[in-house]
Amino acid sequence: MRAEIIATGTELLVGGTLDTNSLFLSEELLPIGIETMFKTVVGDVEKNIEEALHRAMGRANVIIVTGGIGPTEDDITRKVIAKIVKRRLVLNEDALNAIQAKLAGREYAATNDRQALLPAGARLLPNPVGIAPGFFLDEDGLFIAVLPGVPREMEAMFTEGLRPALEERFGGKLFIRRRTLRTCGISESAVDQAIRDILKREAPVTGLAARETGVDIRIVATESGMERVLSLLDRTESAIRKKLGDFIYGMDSQELEEVVGALLSQRRLRLAVAESCTGGLISARITSIAGSSGYFEQGAVVYANQAKTGALGVPAETIERYGAVSRETAAAMAQGIRQTAKTDLGLAVTGIAGPGGGSENKPVGLVYTALATAQGVKTDEHRFLGSRTQVRLKASQMALDMVRRHLIA
Amino acid sequence: MRAEIIATGTELLVGGTLDTNSLFLSEELLPIGIETMFKTVVGDVEKNIEEALHRAMGRANVIIVTGGIGPTEDDITRKVIAKIVKRRLVLNEDALNAIQAKLAGREYAATNDRQALLPAGARLLPNPVGIAPGFFLDEDGLFIAVLPGVPREMEAMFTEGLRPALEERFGGKLFIRRRTLRTCGISESAVDQAIRDILKREAPVTGLAARETGVDIRIVATESGMERVLSLLDRTESAIRKKLGDFIYGMDSQELEEVVGALLSQRRLRLAVAESCTGGLISARITSIAGSSGYFEQGAVVYANQAKTGALGVPAETIERYGAVSRETAAAMAQGIRQTAKTDLGLAVTGIAGPGGGSENKPVGLVYTALATAQGVKTDEHRFLGSRTQVRLKASQMALDMVRRHLIA
Repeated sequence: MRAEIIATGTELLVGGTLDTNSLFLSEELLPIGIETMFKTVVGDVEKNIEEALHRAMGRANVIIVTGGIGPTEDDITRKVIAKIVKRRLVLNEDALNAIQAKLAGREYAATNDRQALLPAGARLLPNPVGIAPGFFLDEDGLFIAVLPGVPREMEAMFTEGLRPALEERFGGKLFIRRRTLRTCGISESAVDQAIRDILKREAPVTGLAARETGVDIRIVATESGMERVLSLLDRTESAIRKKLGDFIYGMDSQELEEVVGALLSQRRLRLAVAESCTGGLISARITSIAGSSGYFEQGAVVYANQAKTGALGVPAETIERYGAVSRETAAAMAQGIRQTAKTDLGLAVTGIAGPGGGSENKPVGLVYTALATAQGVKTDEHRFLGSRTQVRLKASQMALDMVRRHLIA
Repeated sequence: MRAEIIATGTELLVGGTLDTNSLFLSEELLPIGIETMFKTVVGDVEKNIEEALHRAMGRANVIIVTGGIGPTEDDITRKVIAKIVKRRLVLNEDALNAIQAKLAGREYAATNDRQALLPAGARLLPNPVGIAPGFFLDEDGLFIAVLPGVPREMEAMFTEGLRPALEERFGGKLFIRRRTLRTCGISESAVDQAIRDILKREAPVTGLAARETGVDIRIVATESGMERVLSLLDRTESAIRKKLGDFIYGMDSQELEEVVGALLSQRRLRLAVAESCTGGLISARITSIAGSSGYFEQGAVVYANQAKTGALGVPAETIERYGAVSRETAAAMAQGIRQTAKTDLGLAVTGIAGPGGGSENKPVGLVYTALATAQGVKTDEHRFLGSRTQVRLKASQMALDMVRRHLIA
């Protein structure tokens, strides 16, 4: 099945708003066996939406439109779809009841009722989160669905209403699954070299994506049966793991902070973090995971030298002799936060994030990471390229990876 | 002028990669007087790219294609464009020299030369960052430009090569400028109510976008002269400011951490931050700004109660009597970090980010912020809706806003 996704909304063209809905949808359609061939973004202009729909009808079996189903004059998606499929708009009683129930007790504008007008023959998709209902039409070999533009509402409506409908209609014919292996601490060209043979194979389709935090390896398997898909993925994954081993930290959407958190939980160890150039980013990443209070004790953001000495007990002589950005200061920070917080592990980062502050000996991007444990302290030196944001992100990643490698050693 | 942007790359359809290039380009085209009418995403499939180009030629004067100009077999954009405009691919000597100079001393693959093949009559766009050159064709009322898919390379090539060419060709006819006023601490419906009259006007075109961190007000003015554009923007901005006053914290892409940083710098004040539920996010936001070491002293991420007592001197009785999430604990944290770090201002946040940890009296989303100054301590209570990520982001925003409001008072 070939799908086209049409995102409507002038804010996606000139409003500084990124269309993230289409990515969510193409990812979710794949496991149902529906491949997205085109994505189109168009403004809230009747003739342009019409034009986009006409084009899509000529090249896709499944069309999903997002946006333009709210209560205002600008919300013209219902009208355009009705025109294109040559149907009248009729009041859907279930939709109207749901809208009125949701707005009960609030200031009520009659324009809200407009959202209950659906093309004749359309099936209602209730909105589990917001007000505007969606719908779909399935006739003459064409499946058109309409979802809200607000991502939270769109995702909920897809998951609860549209996905089951698509699975019933299209599922079980072609089986497609994607698996992503996430690496860090190894360059894209090194990954390419290590698994070139696998990347060259026709099936499954594999590819690399370099992100700030590391290189992702994507495997997409398409087969006529689910067992064959899974076995192909498993075989390919283990062939890649054989080549890349510990460089692989996680799968699919797993982030390193999640992997590290799970390892700390399993081993019942507690962590404290002292950050200079990353400025709180490592603590923020760790605590973004629900349940992190179970293993995260404390973080110290010690930007000023005085704070390094005062809050962590880093000897002033160490900073004076080796500099705030040095292996020795990083080690003292890691030991200092471990002692202060009385934790099993103390992690520290100090470096030059830029754009200023670099010198010939200590350029922008020079970062030291240190991990203190009961066995002593280990340090690493890194030289990252990129902007302030990139250096900070890469530093936070390699610091977290130090914890991961310690825990799996 | 009507533009269409075509992003090529299978990873944008099934690889989990978001097309951010098209947003950058549509934003940059606007001030040149070029409005983007459609954005299309298509995979690395020859006939689909061809189809997308054919459609675009029928509805746009300016077409910008991103991606598919690297050295591998998959990189078919050059070939498809040449076919569509009925030109041969010819070797561009300047492009070849640039490629060979960049790869000098490295392992050299002959496939790299392929990147120097451009359609006859095309003008070269050098790549200031990477290897693959871009190009543009401008004939018979159609302007087609081709840029790399890697965002950093695409942005550099646009800025240094394509923008000047577009300005020379299309500039000075229609003047379009966008201005965004950024608010926080006020709901979308309250903004809507306050400036409804302005939102209803035909020109300039205004609109609201609700983000996690607040509501943005977008003003787009289109006029035949730049002076008229600017005066229309200025008048509209001051009408909106009259209604919303201090709720507006910044303009365009300015973030609150930047605004707060600039205010602290101006007033030569230093800040320290103690965070519980935001877990380092506030410190990370503040230190994301270059030069923040000038006003940011220290951050403490005090997740455990013991850390609140140990690192900040919050009395154990306060936590016991009022709870870790309370106005009293927030105040003690703010005063504690201010004293520990010896700064002018001490900012603190404690709350329940969820998804667990809530109770009837203290539900998920309950957050206290506190600001300690030489004059004493001020606290605010918030009840945020949303996921853990949303609660943390909103809490960090309202905490930073407390500092802003103190500094402009």
